[in-house]
Amino acid sequence: MKKGSVKERRTIKGERIETEAVKGVLKQVLIGREDGAENYIMRLLTVSPGGHSPRHQHPWEHEVFILNGEGKCLLDNEWHELSKGNAVFVPRGVLHQFVNSSKNEDFEFICVIPNVEEN
Amino acid sequence: MKKGSVKERRTIKGERIETEAVKGVLKQVLIGREDGAENYIMRLLTVSPGGHSPRHQHPWEHEVFILNGEGKCLLDNEWHELSKGNAVFVPRGVLHQFVNSSKNEDFEFICVIPNVEEN
Repeated sequence: MKKGSVKERRTIKGERIETEAVKGVLKQVLIGREDGAENYIMRLLTVSPGGHSPRHQHPWEHEVFILNGEGKCLLDNEWHELSKGNAVFVPRGVLHQFVNSSKNEDFEFICVIPNVEEN
Repeated sequence: MKKGSVKERRTIKGERIETEAVKGVLKQVLIGREDGAENYIMRLLTVSPGGHSPRHQHPWEHEVFILNGEGKCLLDNEWHELSKGNAVFVPRGVLHQFVNSSKNEDFEFICVIPNVEEN
């Protein structure tokens, strides 16, 4: 049996995402399948100034906690201002997007998703 | 269908826990069943200086991210130093405990658990 893991965010390799739909996003998996996580996955998303996650929806939920910076999120058809200490629940099927509102500071948040293939 | 929720940690009512096994812990549910979370629950744990969570094990996992302070955790029979930016995976069945090591600062962490009755 695995005895668990302790990691430091600065040492975790990330994936930089730049597509038509995504701008300036670094995704790091803090706790994933390789650690033995079977049910849900904890990621750290860092969005650069001017950056954003895709505006999309999917049949699984997000549980988010804002660590740093100033941003906003779309939930269905409504925008919400976000800063450190906010928690956001995105139910499955709900249209959503996260945007960095700051001109000079990263927008960082924890995002927990179920262990699904597409995330 | 629920459209999701946005909360601020300072406005969420918490549960203070003081038992034989637990000292100086405030538990706040950031995202729970009432928000529509079906699969996993996001909590914020604040451990006062000198405080600790119970030393126990159970058949579900924890996914933890340290927000503030200095602490340590027991995983199986090994202690690990923790500070802001550390992520900890506690697999199901593994003995664990979280302790605030500081004399004057709260030790704060996100702890995600499956949607189980006992947590």
